[in-house]
Amino acid sequence: MKLLEDRIRKDGRAINADILKVDTFINHQVDPALMLECAKDFAEHFKGQGVTKVATIESSGIAPALLTSIEMGVPLVILKKQPSKVLNDDLYQTMVTSFTKGTNYELTLSRKVIDEKDHVLLIDDFLANGEAATGAVRLVRMAHATVAGVGVLIEKSFQPGNKKLTEAGFEVYSLAKIKSMSEGTIEFV
Amino acid sequence: MKLLEDRIRKDGRAINADILKVDTFINHQVDPALMLECAKDFAEHFKGQGVTKVATIESSGIAPALLTSIEMGVPLVILKKQPSKVLNDDLYQTMVTSFTKGTNYELTLSRKVIDEKDHVLLIDDFLANGEAATGAVRLVRMAHATVAGVGVLIEKSFQPGNKKLTEAGFEVYSLAKIKSMSEGTIEFV
Repeated sequence: MKLLEDRIRKDGRAINADILKVDTFINHQVDPALMLECAKDFAEHFKGQGVTKVATIESSGIAPALLTSIEMGVPLVILKKQPSKVLNDDLYQTMVTSFTKGTNYELTLSRKVIDEKDHVLLIDDFLANGEAATGAVRLVRMAHATVAGVGVLIEKSFQPGNKKLTEAGFEVYSLAKIKSMSEGTIEFV
Repeated sequence: MKLLEDRIRKDGRAINADILKVDTFINHQVDPALMLECAKDFAEHFKGQGVTKVATIESSGIAPALLTSIEMGVPLVILKKQPSKVLNDDLYQTMVTSFTKGTNYELTLSRKVIDEKDHVLLIDDFLANGEAATGAVRLVRMAHATVAGVGVLIEKSFQPGNKKLTEAGFEVYSLAKIKSMSEGTIEFV
């Protein structure tokens, strides 16, 4: 998506080969007009596939996921991060390890909000190692629902997230794919 | 706002005198159509006051705040919760104590996204003791910006948040005001 790539070129900052800061238009300050265009693109791409819910992981994916859910006319589900396992029969939980941040958390979904009739589109801001996305997929399956696909704003194509998800049979639709980065330089696929 | 009160009566669950669960339409699963109506109400109420940015605290306030920012045609700023103080000259930080959850966190704002020209509308899902909202006010003032007001979906009017903010000179606009709760019963102001 040219609009997003152009914006990343203009306002994104590659700190090193791994870290891309997009905190003035996606993560910390959010440009609503840009998010709306991204959401329209996701909704157009995944239309006609029987998506019943959009899901995302708190918190940076909420903005594009909410607008996608509005475009598609379905509810949004925000998967919650808990510091540790909560003993509660009403919840599905799965452990996610974030390599980027060096942390673990329990990703959590209430049994009340996704069930076997649901076909769920996962939306997030970044796809890198795919730990968060594969955790979200595990939760959706624990709820006996199906995954319609994974839509992300920015894919770090030099990391294995896309490959992992694609090999597991899921479609990955990334609006901007980064081939490589170094301090001050961003190269797209 | 009758639409929100009716929905809280229908789908909200008062667990005890303090805890109201709204996880099937606001917090965990989000009803986008309801959030859109709430956002239109906030935007209508605060229009013509020179609001330059909407700000919220991650993560439950992001949905109504994003839609309000779209309605008002201004950027959204998501104030981030950090577990501990980060040594970084580019950040404003203030400690917030959550009585509800029994936790502390550093609320964080980048110097790049709010400055002295900004007039900031704060939007959040709940107002109870007002700890998060007063923390957000402190950050906005550290950035030498002004606060246009505080808009919340649900105010627990039996707790002191509204009084604290009002006495400090800020307008609080709450779409649903809860007078009292007990298990299974919710009474509005």
